[in-house]
Amino acid sequence: MHAHMVGETLQIGLAGLGTVGSGVYEALLRNRDLLEARAQISYEVRRVAVRDRKRERSVAVDEALLTEDWRDLVGDEKIDIIIELIGGTTEAYELVRAALENGKPVVTGNKALLAEYGGALFHLSQQKGAPLYFEASCGGGIPIVQCLQNSLICNNVSAIVGIINGTSNYILTAMDKEGLPFREALKQAQQLGYAEPDPSLDINGWDAAHKGLILAMLAYGTPLNPRAVSVTGIEHIEPVDFNFARQLGYTIRLLVVIRYHESLNALELRVQPSFVPQQHLLSKVAGVFNAIAVRGDIVGETIFYGRGAGKNPTSSAVVGDVVLAMRECRLPGYHTGFRPYAEGVEVMSASDTETSCYVRFRVKDCHGVIAAIAMAFSQHDIGISATSSADGEHRETEGWNHLVFMLHTCRWGQLQEALNDIRKIPTVVGEPVVLRIETFQAI
Amino acid sequence: MHAHMVGETLQIGLAGLGTVGSGVYEALLRNRDLLEARAQISYEVRRVAVRDRKRERSVAVDEALLTEDWRDLVGDEKIDIIIELIGGTTEAYELVRAALENGKPVVTGNKALLAEYGGALFHLSQQKGAPLYFEASCGGGIPIVQCLQNSLICNNVSAIVGIINGTSNYILTAMDKEGLPFREALKQAQQLGYAEPDPSLDINGWDAAHKGLILAMLAYGTPLNPRAVSVTGIEHIEPVDFNFARQLGYTIRLLVVIRYHESLNALELRVQPSFVPQQHLLSKVAGVFNAIAVRGDIVGETIFYGRGAGKNPTSSAVVGDVVLAMRECRLPGYHTGFRPYAEGVEVMSASDTETSCYVRFRVKDCHGVIAAIAMAFSQHDIGISATSSADGEHRETEGWNHLVFMLHTCRWGQLQEALNDIRKIPTVVGEPVVLRIETFQAI
Repeated sequence: MHAHMVGETLQIGLAGLGTVGSGVYEALLRNRDLLEARAQISYEVRRVAVRDRKRERSVAVDEALLTEDWRDLVGDEKIDIIIELIGGTTEAYELVRAALENGKPVVTGNKALLAEYGGALFHLSQQKGAPLYFEASCGGGIPIVQCLQNSLICNNVSAIVGIINGTSNYILTAMDKEGLPFREALKQAQQLGYAEPDPSLDINGWDAAHKGLILAMLAYGTPLNPRAVSVTGIEHIEPVDFNFARQLGYTIRLLVVIRYHESLNALELRVQPSFVPQQHLLSKVAGVFNAIAVRGDIVGETIFYGRGAGKNPTSSAVVGDVVLAMRECRLPGYHTGFRPYAEGVEVMSASDTETSCYVRFRVKDCHGVIAAIAMAFSQHDIGISATSSADGEHRETEGWNHLVFMLHTCRWGQLQEALNDIRKIPTVVGEPVVLRIETFQAI
Repeated sequence: MHAHMVGETLQIGLAGLGTVGSGVYEALLRNRDLLEARAQISYEVRRVAVRDRKRERSVAVDEALLTEDWRDLVGDEKIDIIIELIGGTTEAYELVRAALENGKPVVTGNKALLAEYGGALFHLSQQKGAPLYFEASCGGGIPIVQCLQNSLICNNVSAIVGIINGTSNYILTAMDKEGLPFREALKQAQQLGYAEPDPSLDINGWDAAHKGLILAMLAYGTPLNPRAVSVTGIEHIEPVDFNFARQLGYTIRLLVVIRYHESLNALELRVQPSFVPQQHLLSKVAGVFNAIAVRGDIVGETIFYGRGAGKNPTSSAVVGDVVLAMRECRLPGYHTGFRPYAEGVEVMSASDTETSCYVRFRVKDCHGVIAAIAMAFSQHDIGISATSSADGEHRETEGWNHLVFMLHTCRWGQLQEALNDIRKIPTVVGEPVVLRIETFQAI
């Protein structure tokens, strides 16, 4: 990478012209005067790599800029900055590696890539003195990455709790507000374009887990093993759970929870649908919006809220990074990746993490089942703070009943052992629904 | 300013060792390893300027570092960065000017200084190539300044609406939740240390106005005249207004509203207690917390939430800026101030701004007064969406009654004219309470 002089026009290579790629191209053009005036830098998009040159696009790009080989960008000496928006983890990995090898700063929004290969890529980035920017990989337009990297830099982060998947939040909000079953809420999200035709990663929690990994690596400055994250999706939630939650003063949200246990040098890192107290701001985050709460030892609790996905919000994050990259082109050697903090930190086993819980059983409506379940919890030293059964309206007609237990704080592993015993009770039918209760007292 | 090499120890001069000053000193010491590892920069506090060397302090500072003359910092060739935390607008102005004149980057949290002299100081900063940082001047630990300057840089900002005074928000929350009269809520805030012995600037709206000016200058890149801001405080709010608000689906918050009217190249810039819809997140911001909603043309709506004041949150912002300043010491010529955007933009007259409104009159309980008031509104072309009078519980005993009108959108000037007529109605007593209704539809 060569240092640039003020006044020189920086050359951008854009790889990928899908939804976000075209949004970025449009934003760079539409707000060019504003950007150049504010950043005091002038720029040009020099080359655009696409999969198929002939494809019709919503955005008008000069034919001469297009290439079907991203190597034309990475190998072009005149190109100063690469934007990677092709997605996936195979070709994108090759591309980002090659760009960094050539000393070119890279801006990416690819969360799966960073969750999987973040450690290696940041190592390479540092070796080559070529920064790697990734604001768009977490929280769409919410500037959580720059905030963690810069504004909150003096803080030891004790916890991050966030709603960082817009699709699942839309589905949960629709189930809550309109009483829709999961499948119908998902269909509605698909019809509105808020869920992909294949929504697996959004509803099984792995999209949130990728983002959570990035936030954790950012806050604690160490690569982490994606396989160590405990991930539960939202497919098993039913409208009746929202009724119970409401009565008890909560709502249900898919949360990523990151909490550092200093005494263990271990990180609690989990994604699951959870009870959120109605008084906490995160319970009010509705539809496709995201919000991320960060607790630092100096700043206290902060929350960042905004559109977590979509063409324009994500483009705002990408372009913000491009400007940063353009500035840093004049500041070689600055390190943008995960910064050292907790060397050798490990992700805790899910069974060692502790919360209070909501557990809903489907039971045969007969005497003795409450006592049998309560006995099982008691044998595993788990306290019960309340029990409740479905009122008439939600009582099932075929002789089954919903039975809810609110449990005191216990280890997740301890709870699993109790549940194994409870599954053997003949009047308990099917799988229990277990939701963690996030009190936010420790955030 | 001289450019620094990686590895060199940067020297800091700290002016002011009050609440925030000692918080910054402590944070720089306590989290030094973390900061040096993350920012890859080493630093030292070389000199600390205080008003009185002999005074007892909560923070232990080496006697040899202390001086009673800030000129010892500004004139010290070895000092790379000045932190200004002495407050006020006279000596602080001299200090910051002198530091910038000497080419030293300055970090400040002084909102009054920037609201009054921001234009001049940023001009000087640019002339001298010495950056001026001011994250701590708005929203305490909330990184709103860096977000507007960097992460959201590609956005045309159409509006900013915020709760940016913790003291008044604490008072309003206590009035709302506990039904306290204003004076008692203020006393409670003072007892808890959330309000100064002289709370004038917090409750009359001018502290929020200073911060609003800074946010506006930042978003629109132009110095603005502080005298042009329309400012109303919270002293005239009564508990009964919260009852009406709640019934109507609102709560009351002291808001700063900044909205750019492109067709006029004019800025709506006002601070006043306003109705906030209960569904909007800002209505849930309680106690001393702050929150700032920003709408950009690319990113959509974002909200930043956190502790808006206090030693530690403000220190987090100051130290974040110090790290930025240390990095930028290696990047001379970068411009941190208000960036060009809307040349010649003017602050609109308050009378030209439009909202819907809540108006509460105190009236003699007799026939004809509703009709007389409604007639006056109608003569001034102001539509009424609802009227309501106090229910038994809040009805005054001495023969007066509260009468509330919810008005359709009208110009503020138009409303004042109608109110002038209504004041002449003999059965209307005392001053009406007028609160704007913020729908957040245009944010």
